[in-house]
Amino acid sequence: MPETIKVTVWNEYDDHQKIPEIASVYPDGMHNAIAGFLNKESGISAGVSIITDPEQGLSHQILDDTGVLIWWGHIHHGAVQDDLAKRVVEKVQRGMGIIFLHSAHQSKPFMGLLGTTGRLGWREAREKSRVWTASPAHPIADGVPEQFLLDNEEMYSEPFGIPEPDATVFISWFEGGNVFRSGVTFQRDLGRIFYFQGGHETFPTYHNPHVQRIITNAVKWAKPTMRAPSLDCPNMEALEKIKG
Amino acid sequence: MPETIKVTVWNEYDDHQKIPEIASVYPDGMHNAIAGFLNKESGISAGVSIITDPEQGLSHQILDDTGVLIWWGHIHHGAVQDDLAKRVVEKVQRGMGIIFLHSAHQSKPFMGLLGTTGRLGWREAREKSRVWTASPAHPIADGVPEQFLLDNEEMYSEPFGIPEPDATVFISWFEGGNVFRSGVTFQRDLGRIFYFQGGHETFPTYHNPHVQRIITNAVKWAKPTMRAPSLDCPNMEALEKIKG
Amino acid sequence: MPETIKVTVWNEYDDHQKIPEIASVYPDGMHNAIAGFLNKESGISAGVSIITDPEQGLSHQILDDTGVLIWWGHIHHGAVQDDLAKRVVEKVQRGMGIIFLHSAHQSKPFMGLLGTTGRLGWREAREKSRVWTASPAHPIADGVPEQFLLDNEEMYSEPFGIPEPDATVFISWFEGGNVFRSGVTFQRDLGRIFYFQGGHETFPTYHNPHVQRIITNAVKWAKPTMRAPSLDCPNMEALEKIKG
Amino acid sequence: MPETIKVTVWNEYDDHQKIPEIASVYPDGMHNAIAGFLNKESGISAGVSIITDPEQGLSHQILDDTGVLIWWGHIHHGAVQDDLAKRVVEKVQRGMGIIFLHSAHQSKPFMGLLGTTGRLGWREAREKSRVWTASPAHPIADGVPEQFLLDNEEMYSEPFGIPEPDATVFISWFEGGNVFRSGVTFQRDLGRIFYFQGGHETFPTYHNPHVQRIITNAVKWAKPTMRAPSLDCPNMEALEKIKG
Repeated sequence: MPETIKVTVWNEYDDHQKIPEIASVYPDGMHNAIAGFLNKESGISAGVSIITDPEQGLSHQILDDTGVLIWWGHIHHGAVQDDLAKRVVEKVQRGMGIIFLHSAHQSKPFMGLLGTTGRLGWREAREKSRVWTASPAHPIADGVPEQFLLDNEEMYSEPFGIPEPDATVFISWFEGGNVFRSGVTFQRDLGRIFYFQGGHETFPTYHNPHVQRIITNAVKWAKPTMRAPSLDCPNMEALEKIKG
Repeated sequence: MPETIKVTVWNEYDDHQKIPEIASVYPDGMHNAIAGFLNKESGISAGVSIITDPEQGLSHQILDDTGVLIWWGHIHHGAVQDDLAKRVVEKVQRGMGIIFLHSAHQSKPFMGLLGTTGRLGWREAREKSRVWTASPAHPIADGVPEQFLLDNEEMYSEPFGIPEPDATVFISWFEGGNVFRSGVTFQRDLGRIFYFQGGHETFPTYHNPHVQRIITNAVKWAKPTMRAPSLDCPNMEALEKIKG
Repeated sequence: MPETIKVTVWNEYDDHQKIPEIASVYPDGMHNAIAGFLNKESGISAGVSIITDPEQGLSHQILDDTGVLIWWGHIHHGAVQDDLAKRVVEKVQRGMGIIFLHSAHQSKPFMGLLGTTGRLGWREAREKSRVWTASPAHPIADGVPEQFLLDNEEMYSEPFGIPEPDATVFISWFEGGNVFRSGVTFQRDLGRIFYFQGGHETFPTYHNPHVQRIITNAVKWAKPTMRAPSLDCPNMEALEKIKG
Repeated sequence: MPETIKVTVWNEYDDHQKIPEIASVYPDGMHNAIAGFLNKESGISAGVSIITDPEQGLSHQILDDTGVLIWWGHIHHGAVQDDLAKRVVEKVQRGMGIIFLHSAHQSKPFMGLLGTTGRLGWREAREKSRVWTASPAHPIADGVPEQFLLDNEEMYSEPFGIPEPDATVFISWFEGGNVFRSGVTFQRDLGRIFYFQGGHETFPTYHNPHVQRIITNAVKWAKPTMRAPSLDCPNMEALEKIKG
């Protein structure tokens, strides 16, 4: 029997999310909504942590017990402590999977892992978005239709400041005339990374069954194949005789 | 002074292109229209060849004198002789650059070089297309705006059957709700490859200054860095003593 | 319970392999040796087919029942019929996994899928080779040590005529002074591809437990995520209203 | 006439480099040796800056006037100020090219741009190294032979903690039994990155004509195609009418 994948859904959740417009869509916060649908999947066990927890919810204990971290942040990117952002980066390098959602494209761990700015264009206009599957055979697209509609999304637009992805899984169309690589994968040392654009806090994107399927698939795809306590630079003995 | 880049614009041009709807847009054929704007660029010398020429316009003499081949074909893909398609593939592997335009996504040389089907969805509805620059620093995007409009295009849609590109330079938006990776690069052995979606035969796409800029840039980018008469498998002497 | 992966190990096996030097290492042929260790793995069911079988062992019936095809060929590359090589290419594009071993780097399906020459340097000198794991977290490297020794290998050398791989899993060192990207992955449409250099016919490479582990891992990695009966170009209805 | 490429060769150079073993090989420091051969090339103008200069030699004035920065550092990685390392990362994202040499694989800008650890194995044993050209058509390999010998090198070994490169240009063989991807390229936003392994401070690697050719080629390849004063996230107006 395959081992259970432990997921932690991290959110900058705090008072700002208790404003009525958000609370009406995600009464318990997006993190609990996401953990909720993940916990319905056999083989996944999801918990949550938030920025107001001790060590901003990013203690060694939590991260070392996490197979895949899901990151949602937006207006509090700057409040995440540098040392904790660096800790997340290192845990990914040592094997932890990570899924960045929506506005996490400019979180410190995203920029730290990708080495780019994550810049993009944006617009809040309650516009239609269509998510197209560009790589139908990718495990993250398993069971996802050729395209699906999100009635209201915050628009994110190219040019998107990312390295050329290992796989371009989804590309989105926006009613107002824009396109965006909305689902992309990367590898950094031992850890797998997936970014997914969907999910503005005032829209019910995480209640959409296709989005839930994508995130669930991504958790399974990003689960660690191995974890290393450290990745240093060993002084290696010669395997063959050196004449010198 | 940099060497002049010799370009050959190949077209399946024949009677079918003399039908009024096409002739009104490209009176001398698309190949001559493309060669025409390329020849205005200093450092580029462009000629043409067509499928009704001897050896279907793909003689060794022509190809060996061609730095970058531009390929436009559509309804006559099957008429290109297998041995000549293979010859084109080999010339690219040995260093010749190639630019595939529009419906060339299922030409024999395209599929032979990429190893994929080139499949895509399509629609002829005179719809608007917006070409977005996803990689603004790529040489092929030099001088191309963040996005530009084509009033009428044949729609090409994801999923596009290509390997993950070396660079995703352009992604297009279509009025009818589709997206498409419309400008992508690849390398095969010594040769550079660029595919560009724009260019249905009954629309004036190749008269658009941004499209002309893209194709001109692509010619400069795809020019050979080296050419090899053959790429075989040499039996190599040992450089170091083998104890055996 | 995960579905059993059906593997077919294809070999050009014929009289030439019955020569004593080869038969002493692989009395039943390499294909049976490879199928033998794969069949010890739960979840894998491996059969064999050879070039002297009907339809050269590549009938639709066999290929449609094969999740992952393993290909070993060398001196009879040219004898594989073009239409059957094309059939293999298409089955991979439609989802079948394929593993190319050793001299399969210039088989028709390899060149057809990669679009490159597969050229390399070579030497038969019974020299030592060390296989280094460049991507330790890749599923194909699971349980494979940082490096391992093959006492005698045919040397394969860079430059290796392949596209830049999706993942460079292994790189080999050769006693005579050469290096080679000996384990590389690619994706073509729906199908996964792994090339592994090890395995000259007169050396017991396929009896090495690390090599067996690599091939077993590769089978699990390359198993289809989906299969399509065809990959054509659908005429798509508009999803959004086109003003025209 | 093409514009002159301005290069700055940065070195952590200080008292430690004045020790006799190093000074006998590079009397004026490696930075001056590298600038020296670059300045012999028409179209390149190279200066130097070192860690003991104001702002550690990384002032805005210097970096904004630098087309390609060459970075050599080793035992003083930790002494580079975080804000200055971040400044270098941002200048690269905004278009400046960068070449990391040898032990710069764990400099702050390298890790900041790649998002990986840069970990590797190493050995100081005055052993032979052979640099193999894996991508002969890459501009950085222009004029570089299929392989060349360095009589004495510090050994760097796989596994090398880098993302899968955009291009694997060189792979090195080491006498003691190791291999290493010794020349690799990356893109981060608008900036090009090249890492080259050769160059231990007590060996005359930078006096080798092939190494000089590689670095010269890399400067030409990495020169900016465009530079942006900033890369932020614009709020974009809709291009098409949104029904809302």
